[in-house]
This record gives sequence, structure tokens and C-alpha cells, in this order.
Amino acid sequence: MKASEIGEFGLIDRLAGFTKTLSDKRQSSWRQLLVGIGDDAAMWKPRNPFQLATVDSLVEDVHFSFKYTSWLELGWKSVAVNLSDIAAMGATPMYALVSLGLPRATDVRNAEQLYEGMAEIANRFGVAIIGGDTVRSPFVFVSVTVAGCASNESGEILRRSAAQPGNVVAVTGSLGAAAAGLTMLNGGLRLPPRTAAELRRAQLLPVPRISEGQKLVALGVRAGMDISDGLVGDLTHICEMSKVGARLSVDAVPVSPAATEGFGEQALQFALNGGEDYELLFAAPAKTVQRVQSELGCRVTPVGEVTAAHPGKVELVDGADKALDLSKPGWDHFTR
Amino acid sequence: MKASEIGEFGLIDRLAGFTKTLSDKRQSSWRQLLVGIGDDAAMWKPRNPFQLATVDSLVEDVHFSFKYTSWLELGWKSVAVNLSDIAAMGATPMYALVSLGLPRATDVRNAEQLYEGMAEIANRFGVAIIGGDTVRSPFVFVSVTVAGCASNESGEILRRSAAQPGNVVAVTGSLGAAAAGLTMLNGGLRLPPRTAAELRRAQLLPVPRISEGQKLVALGVRAGMDISDGLVGDLTHICEMSKVGARLSVDAVPVSPAATEGFGEQALQFALNGGEDYELLFAAPAKTVQRVQSELGCRVTPVGEVTAAHPGKVELVDGADKALDLSKPGWDHFTR
Repeated sequence: MKASEIGEFGLIDRLAGFTKTLSDKRQSSWRQLLVGIGDDAAMWKPRNPFQLATVDSLVEDVHFSFKYTSWLELGWKSVAVNLSDIAAMGATPMYALVSLGLPRATDVRNAEQLYEGMAEIANRFGVAIIGGDTVRSPFVFVSVTVAGCASNESGEILRRSAAQPGNVVAVTGSLGAAAAGLTMLNGGLRLPPRTAAELRRAQLLPVPRISEGQKLVALGVRAGMDISDGLVGDLTHICEMSKVGARLSVDAVPVSPAATEGFGEQALQFALNGGEDYELLFAAPAKTVQRVQSELGCRVTPVGEVTAAHPGKVELVDGADKALDLSKPGWDHFTR
Repeated sequence: MKASEIGEFGLIDRLAGFTKTLSDKRQSSWRQLLVGIGDDAAMWKPRNPFQLATVDSLVEDVHFSFKYTSWLELGWKSVAVNLSDIAAMGATPMYALVSLGLPRATDVRNAEQLYEGMAEIANRFGVAIIGGDTVRSPFVFVSVTVAGCASNESGEILRRSAAQPGNVVAVTGSLGAAAAGLTMLNGGLRLPPRTAAELRRAQLLPVPRISEGQKLVALGVRAGMDISDGLVGDLTHICEMSKVGARLSVDAVPVSPAATEGFGEQALQFALNGGEDYELLFAAPAKTVQRVQSELGCRVTPVGEVTAAHPGKVELVDGADKALDLSKPGWDHFTR
């Protein structure tokens, strides 16, 4: 059945009903919700006094392609990238609003699959889908807003602007798999099945570091963000906002083993400039980073240091501390 | 200069700087803001304990056309339709997040004009633009999220589900001008200059009924919404959500004089089914409606009554209380 056959209201009703069925209403976000889907706006009464919000859109053939993405994966990722922005602040996601653009000929079952993917990740992280709109559009786009709250009563969060000279720069997990996955999918490359599956998952079903972001704040980290544009580009954002410089030890960067299996030495470029890994990048005093390493519950790798020299700039150095020039801008949709 | 020449980050920086310049920071929304544009998410500490949010997208050649809309008007309207959803709840808008899809060849000056239109209406209603993203897209779309709070400490708002049998149904202002304007613009019709200007303004620069919505709540009204899809369609939404019926006196409907000047008898159809007038439609006991009429500060017209018969249905009647069948579905983008 096509979207055009049941009309805008028919589709909205159907997706709203479907979303309600899929939702796990035991979560605290649902208990704080007073008005959900069906009215002109949603309303809730938050327990935490600090509110956060972020929005990101994914556009067909710019951010994803149906050549390799399923509707379910698109639903997951469109919510994941926004949850990652909340993780980047060390905060707690609570609510999602979805604005969905669909061509007239879209099969209603595909729109439902998209919502299934959104509900799956929303349930996993305690997020309630509380509203949105569905509009006709010549191409598919999914614009998701996530609202949340600070993870503590004092409103402490991670900021891009809080890095200080002398801080150690560190990252969670490993980098490069998402960009390697994109290259594999775009090129239709055949890789060993386990490698291929891992790279595909990294690109299409990223898992935001929600609890890790919250723990970073609890452990005293104040400077951080998520890696969506690439390590070098995102560290540059931190340097710009904090008015500091940074030295990045290329040899220390934790390159994804799957990316290396699939792409050999190219994997380092993916790790440095590929983006979309949705790991956390943060800066803190050496002692704090050591504590984070032992308590965060995932791999944490120091990759550099914050300096007072060259504010806004990232200097890449090798194992012998010699300057390199591998830098390339991060993922930039307008210039590519 | 094209968007592609300065890249995604160049454009985001430029628009962020531009938005900051245009913002009126004396507003209370700005004073409650702790983190604005430039970090992974925005953060604020609301004074009112009840939070609201809504999102709506406008898509090129579906909801607007550059054949007749300027970028400034598009910016205004994309925020206006969301503020109207907050007005529909009788609440207070506080923050806007903008997700903007632009083709590579977009002139940066046009994107700035769009933000100028958004800033103009945002400043007028005390709304702070606190974040968003700008992405490449084959067509222009603007997805705006507005967050707000209840207009009182007890969280009282207007709901679609609160209409009760015996209530009088009433509307603010007059209806039909926005749809008449769309017909005029789409058809390139020549109308007398003052009429044309008014119809154009109604379609492209709608003014949300923010203070009126808040006053309705203060005066004891609890059932209401904004008229975005058309009077008959939206009253049907109220009937469905409230599990009641309604009789709508067609002769009582306040048809826009400009719509009548331009389109004669067709203006009634615009008023009943045209949509996009962003007036408020509400239901309350007769006494409350009388008080609203004397205190709201804009035209308020009783147009019908809520009944216990035929839940979910709107019956159209003429001046002699005889049933009519003018009904047509509201604006539905998928089936048209």
C-alpha cells in the first residue's frame, strides 16, 4: 500500500498507533510525559532542572542511500546520531520528535520499518517518541529532534569549550570502522563476511555512548564531544571553542581492527578523517583520564595533549613526536 | 557566493554568527539559556516546570514555491507554523532549533535572508534560536522544532481532547484568507492591490495567536487547537480526540473580507476547508465564550456547538439549522 493511498492523516494515524505499540512505557521518560502524540505539541514535567535539545537530519543520497540501507537501519541511525549529540554533552536523552519526508509512492510498510528502527533504539536508551509530522517530499529525509536533561542535579555537562592546556586528549572505543563501512557499501566491495558485517554495522547501526558520556561527567571530565565529523576535524572544533591548540599522536590513535582487516593502511585515514564513529572525544587532566580508563567500562585511549600554542589548530605528530601533515577536512557535505 | 564554495562548516559558522547578531537577547528565553549554538546540544534551565515541544517541516514545491515565496517569507513561515502549535496549546514558546536542507548551488545570501525571516518572528515572540544543522539536500526543506513551557505554574493548557457536549465552538479572527492567497499566488491571479497584499500576507506571513492562546487558558478554556488544516478538518480532529460530535453553523463562519473581495462565494470554501489560517479553534461553556469575546482583544465568533451525537463527526448546518454537505477533507499532501 502506498502512502498516497491512505493520505497524510491516514499515514500519521497509522504510524502513531504503530509507535505506541512498539514503545516500552515503563521508562521514566514515559512517566514524566503528560501529552504525547495526537495533540498540537507534546508536554512533559521534567524531574531534572536542566533541559537539552538537539536536531539532525538525514537526507536520501546525501547521508544515506537505499542501495545499501534498509528502512529499519535508517530509523535506527536517524535517532542514533541525535542521541550521540546528547551523549556528547554527558546528558540523558528523554524524548524524540520526528519530522519525516516521504515520496508519495512510499510503501506504508517501509515507513513502519523506519519507525521500528527508531523505536528499537529509543526503547534501548529509555527515549519516548512523542511527536512529529509526516510530509510529502520528492526525496526521503528524516529530521529528528532529541530533548533530554542533564545527568545530574547541578547541570554539569561536557562542553566543547572547556579544554585546557596540559589536558590529555582521549577517545573511547576505536575509530575508522564507520567510514570504512561507507567505502565498502558505496563501492560494493567484497570483504570477508565477519569484517563486512562489522563495518556495515558501524556505518548503519551506530551505538551512541550515552552511559559513557554520563560517567565522564561523574568522573570530573568537563571537555568533550562526539566524533561525528572525524577525529582531526572534531578535535579542531574543541580547539576552536576552547581557544587552545592540540597535538595528536597519530601512532596512538586506536584504529578499528575491522577497518584494518578490510582496508590495510587506509584505515588510519578513516580513523583520522572519516567521521560517523560516534565515539566520545574528551580532554581532562592526566589523573582524571587514568581514572576514566579504569572505570569507564570501555576502551579509552589517550591520543594527544592540549597545548597553549596555536589556538584552534591541531598538530599531527608521529611516534617520535615529529610533525606530520595527513590532515584533510572532515566530512563536509557541501564541498564534496 | 554559493553554499558549496564555503562548505557545510563555513555556512553553519556564518549562519550562526548571523543569527547571534539578529537576536534580541533581552528576552527571558535568552536569560534562561546556558548553552546555545556551537555545542553538540543546547541547554537551558526553565523556570516553568512544564515543557512542551513540537516540530513541523516545510518542503519546496510541496508546502511552498520559490515562484512566489521569498527566502525571508519562508523563514518567517517555517517558524510561524510551529509557534502556532504552541499557541494551540495556550503555552509560551521559548526556543527554536532549525534543520535546514539546501542545494549546493544555494546563494549564501538567500540562506541569510531565511534566517532574517526566522529571527524577525522569533524576536517578536521572545523565542531564541538555539541550534540546528544545515545539510545538503536536492531541494530546500526547513524543519523547525519549537520548545516552550506552559503559560502557568499548574500546567494548564488547551487540549484537543477536552471538548464536552454543550460547549460552544468558536474561532478567533477570520478564515479563508490564507487559502485564497495560495490560490491567487499559484494561479498568478491579478486582484486589486490591497486585497492581493492582504491575501499574500495571510498565506506567507501568518501571525500565530500566542497571547490569545495564553489568555484562553487563563479565562478557563481547556479545549482548543490551531486551524492549520481547515476549520472542518480541524474541528473533526477535536471531535475525534474528545469523542464528541459537533454542529457547525456555516452561515456563522467569519469569512475573511479580503478572501470574499477576491473570490466571492468561493471564499466560504476557503474558510471551511482551506487551512493555514493559524487562527485558534476552541470549545467552552457559553458563559466562558462570552467572557472570551469581551476580553480576548481580537474578534471571536461562535460557529457551532459540541454534541453527544455521532462522536468524531462534524455536521454542517445552514442558518435554518438544516444539514448541508459542503464537507471536503482538509489539506492533505499525500492524496493531492
